[in-house]
Amino acid sequence: GRARRTAEGIEVCTPEMLRVPAVGRGRIEEWARAAVRRIGGRSVTVPAEFPLGIARHLERCKIKVNVATGALFPERAVKRADELRKITESQRAAVAAFHAARELLTMAEVNAAGELVMKQKRVTSELLRETIQRVLFHHNCIGRDLISAGGAQGADPHEQGHGPLRAGEPIVVDIFPQHQDHGYWGDLTRTVIKGKASREWRRLYTAVRAAQHAALEELRPGVKGKTVHRRAAEELERRGFKTWRGAGRVEGFIHSTGHGVGLEIHEQPTLGPRTDDRLRTGHVVTVEPGYYIPGVGGIRIEDTVVVTPGGWRYLARCDQRFEVE
Amino acid sequence: GRARRTAEGIEVCTPEMLRVPAVGRGRIEEWARAAVRRIGGRSVTVPAEFPLGIARHLERCKIKVNVATGALFPERAVKRADELRKITESQRAAVAAFHAARELLTMAEVNAAGELVMKQKRVTSELLRETIQRVLFHHNCIGRDLISAGGAQGADPHEQGHGPLRAGEPIVVDIFPQHQDHGYWGDLTRTVIKGKASREWRRLYTAVRAAQHAALEELRPGVKGKTVHRRAAEELERRGFKTWRGAGRVEGFIHSTGHGVGLEIHEQPTLGPRTDDRLRTGHVVTVEPGYYIPGVGGIRIEDTVVVTPGGWRYLARCDQRFEVE
Repeated sequence: GRARRTAEGIEVCTPEMLRVPAVGRGRIEEWARAAVRRIGGRSVTVPAEFPLGIARHLERCKIKVNVATGALFPERAVKRADELRKITESQRAAVAAFHAARELLTMAEVNAAGELVMKQKRVTSELLRETIQRVLFHHNCIGRDLISAGGAQGADPHEQGHGPLRAGEPIVVDIFPQHQDHGYWGDLTRTVIKGKASREWRRLYTAVRAAQHAALEELRPGVKGKTVHRRAAEELERRGFKTWRGAGRVEGFIHSTGHGVGLEIHEQPTLGPRTDDRLRTGHVVTVEPGYYIPGVGGIRIEDTVVVTPGGWRYLARCDQRFEVE
Repeated sequence: GRARRTAEGIEVCTPEMLRVPAVGRGRIEEWARAAVRRIGGRSVTVPAEFPLGIARHLERCKIKVNVATGALFPERAVKRADELRKITESQRAAVAAFHAARELLTMAEVNAAGELVMKQKRVTSELLRETIQRVLFHHNCIGRDLISAGGAQGADPHEQGHGPLRAGEPIVVDIFPQHQDHGYWGDLTRTVIKGKASREWRRLYTAVRAAQHAALEELRPGVKGKTVHRRAAEELERRGFKTWRGAGRVEGFIHSTGHGVGLEIHEQPTLGPRTDDRLRTGHVVTVEPGYYIPGVGGIRIEDTVVVTPGGWRYLARCDQRFEVE
């Protein structure tokens, strides 16, 4: 009953309707087999993530199981107006949370050791994340595995960050909340520095920002994801920030430029070097070039935007100042 | 580098070490194949949930893929001391959150329509969940899809609940938080009623509580999960609360008595009618009989306990009063 109320446009069957044998009620693979029997086909197409155990059972029952190449529901990448509203809601929560984090960094003072302190206590990555989480919570969003990584920790794009934050080092703040009511995600990254940035950090920050803007300039229906990625990478290289590998060490722009956002935090399309995805009106994607120097630090700037007939627009704006006074 | 730091006792390989071909870097199935090649075997055993797409690729590469029957790591069901501490932490968060929810119901008044009100505003399922979420948040836990369902809504064990809560109807409160630091879950359900319970509700509540106690009495190493479940079901029947199906309607004790809790909210072992799982010292399980009357309401009482050599003990105690003054 609940499934029928909540899942519009979907046929909901009980085990009785599917005639799942009583002995198979506890086995999901028996339900799958019964569902295929109801549809009446001898073959099904499933996503690549489909559980092997169920597939093997269907095959034992002489049902052919095909793996879809690419997304099973490619139409999901194109968002309807109500979906855009929902992603915007989560993106606005991310922006509000980032503002609270920056406010905290603004209020912090710098002690003799260069660490950020407030009310005699050190300001840590953990405290920054707590502040972010609190704002997300009030927006009815949950953010898991958020990133607030300072200095050398920011050189690993997936490092969450821990311990005291310091002045003069970039702090990467990556906020990806999921809304608790409707499940749509947002995704935002800003990199900030407390106090005055060195000339080197400013140069790198300016380059990453320029790479983001260059990628955004490419963004429009019909363009390939890899073209957008290449533009971001080229802009960094043009400014002297090449990506290089050697001696077990990788420095530079080491990830894709972006990914789709919707009911999953990573979905179609991909803006990366190895994709044939082509942009369409209504695609929602992140644009997030970054540059990482092992042992030193990283910079990433990320916005989530929607592809429009004329190009793109932000789902929620958030300014890109680097220095926090 | 981060994986090596955080994943103790696990071999971490880079794509270079695995010699993933450059053209396959973007494809997870190429990584899987390279990992199998490094181990040097011609066959692998994977859990039933393993992605079909990767399995098909391994098979194309002449690697045999076996599906494990049952859990791939059955040893994970038995918890070490540090794991028990972590589950206890999450369970304590659930208890604290339930107390806050009951406090809210205690403070609420009842208006002429029988609805709960506070400061001229109606007390809703949503407000109750917000209160619960806030406490979990302060315990560094996240609770998704929590349940606070009053009256007829409580008759569906998975209905989250929405809208105004009313006096004289059971309110099912199911709290399952996951700790944000270590990822272990807790699981707790209480059913409460605002004001005086009718004789019928009191009788049913007493029966469900007795069923839980009967199940707990069975709990010890060596006992089968289905034996524990049968005891709970029998106790309900003995008190006149049979489970019956008919005319598309099911009333009664319609789910299993319990499930393992750990890094997943549902894991081994199962306390249900169709399992051969046998309890061992160190298993952590929920014991949660319930009884549901469609269109009327439901009652469920759930605690999470650990199996000990002499029987079992609570991970966190929480009293079982039904009526909230």
